[in-house]
Amino acid sequence: MGGAGRPGLGAAARRGGGPVPVIVALSGGIGGAKLALGLSKVLPPEELLVVANTGDDFEHVGLTICPDIDTLTYTLAGLDNPVLGWGRADESWAFMETLAALGGEDWFRLGDRDLALHVLRTHRLRGGEPLSAITDDLRRRLGIGARILPMSDDPVRTRLRGDAGWIDFQDWFVRQRATPAVRAIEFAGAAAARPQPGVLAALRAGPRAVVICPSNPFISIEPILAVPGMREAIAVCGAPVVAVSPIIAGQAVKGPTAKMFSELGMEPSAAAVAARYGALLDGYVMEEGDDATGIAPHVFRTRTLMQTLDDKVALARAVLAAAEALR
Amino acid sequence: MGGAGRPGLGAAARRGGGPVPVIVALSGGIGGAKLALGLSKVLPPEELLVVANTGDDFEHVGLTICPDIDTLTYTLAGLDNPVLGWGRADESWAFMETLAALGGEDWFRLGDRDLALHVLRTHRLRGGEPLSAITDDLRRRLGIGARILPMSDDPVRTRLRGDAGWIDFQDWFVRQRATPAVRAIEFAGAAAARPQPGVLAALRAGPRAVVICPSNPFISIEPILAVPGMREAIAVCGAPVVAVSPIIAGQAVKGPTAKMFSELGMEPSAAAVAARYGALLDGYVMEEGDDATGIAPHVFRTRTLMQTLDDKVALARAVLAAAEALR
Repeated sequence: MGGAGRPGLGAAARRGGGPVPVIVALSGGIGGAKLALGLSKVLPPEELLVVANTGDDFEHVGLTICPDIDTLTYTLAGLDNPVLGWGRADESWAFMETLAALGGEDWFRLGDRDLALHVLRTHRLRGGEPLSAITDDLRRRLGIGARILPMSDDPVRTRLRGDAGWIDFQDWFVRQRATPAVRAIEFAGAAAARPQPGVLAALRAGPRAVVICPSNPFISIEPILAVPGMREAIAVCGAPVVAVSPIIAGQAVKGPTAKMFSELGMEPSAAAVAARYGALLDGYVMEEGDDATGIAPHVFRTRTLMQTLDDKVALARAVLAAAEALR
Repeated sequence: MGGAGRPGLGAAARRGGGPVPVIVALSGGIGGAKLALGLSKVLPPEELLVVANTGDDFEHVGLTICPDIDTLTYTLAGLDNPVLGWGRADESWAFMETLAALGGEDWFRLGDRDLALHVLRTHRLRGGEPLSAITDDLRRRLGIGARILPMSDDPVRTRLRGDAGWIDFQDWFVRQRATPAVRAIEFAGAAAARPQPGVLAALRAGPRAVVICPSNPFISIEPILAVPGMREAIAVCGAPVVAVSPIIAGQAVKGPTAKMFSELGMEPSAAAVAARYGALLDGYVMEEGDDATGIAPHVFRTRTLMQTLDDKVALARAVLAAAEALR
């Protein structure tokens, strides 16, 4: 399923019997997951590798929580909660209510079903399994055909400097509701992190395209690119690199992207996102009417707002067509 | 509340303004918790200290689970599940269902609300808090006036030797449904464990009585007595030591007590339980019609089966009266 009507990329490689060139999609949480879902609907499972940001990961009440991996996993499994924008649709909150009653921290909400994933992952991580192996096992158990891999099996933690000093990402994003102005960003642990070997292998094997999903560049995509060797591996992989703008008419569809641009002294615009990625980009997919002045890579215009599944599929097709046009 | 009509023990000490002599009750899970609940209804909160067996504790899916502390806590808080005999009454199972679907171990059932206690306790233990401080904080938050303390803040783990070798207690008790014959018992870690300081202090301060609840002697009470210094502290505390038989007419009210007596080569009887405790006992409370032949300590007869709250309160009063008679 999903193969009919998709662009014909990769057909030659399959005919030749060699490894299938894949689409490598770099993604954060909700916005990226929408396009990843669209890609998963138009590509055979073995032709899609989603690389998840783990800079948002954190330790909470003794559990290792990986919000972007989880959003991708739940979204691709059809279990996501579109109302909340995180967690599972079929959720209950008995654990959370009781935790609060017992004096536990309750600013980060963990549903009863969601919790099973966190408990199991934390237990397996403590037992020495790499995050990638656990992530891969869980997506298989949830019936997801496409691969989802963390950018690295080593911990990277995004930290933000506000006017009151450095704070952890989830503290800022959830506990403080992304309210404090952000003056600087760092990815703690990134310098010592190694790219996840499966991601590196896919890039070295010659992918069909690298897609940068419409995620927040500062906190979703740049942590991935900050893993030493990742940016270089993408730059030399020989495939077109196509980003999708997360900014439409100067606004982010969801989340603090536009706000962060302003606080960091930049105008929130599709062009500003393209500028962040710089020479890495070969193509840039952006909203029909937005200003493309000064954008260096080849611009492709389409509807980028993803409200329905059809929107996601249509954008996925447009991105793949853009990549094909750039080959 | 609960003070009216109780025996007048300790009144002199209270009048004198010194520390209030307490009832120190040694307890395992369900049977012991029933008597502990009865005691909590007839004693002022500051006059009851329940010492919980931690030999049943274990690590499961990365969580430290303390079944006897939990049963005591839920029972004294009025949250216990009388149908299951463990866990909470107002429970749901979304976590457990999801854990099983994700390939996690599901032989030990953890309810959504129960889980909050395990997650919080595990997190606090990892942060360096002693089990006793966490247990004390949680019982306060659940509105329990009486103190509940673990026998030790150091880990002790009951292990059983069956015909197939040594296994962990919960593996035998829950996963194997207490089916394999038990040939020997050990308390791993006991030799290096220290009595919980608050327990030792209460014994040294001169309690009104030490009550050995109607729990399984092998796996609920003997782990407590195996903590170096505990048996001696009880023996020299100057207060009467009164045990309640968990065996009625040769049968255990619940659990594998009678079965274990047989497998360990002893006849399951009230007398056999008294013999296990030996010279530690001053008094022994047992069922009306049961055979007291050969029981060394002073025997008190009453109805020991606790089905209703009135039964629990009546047995608690009988035990306190027995202790008073022995002073």
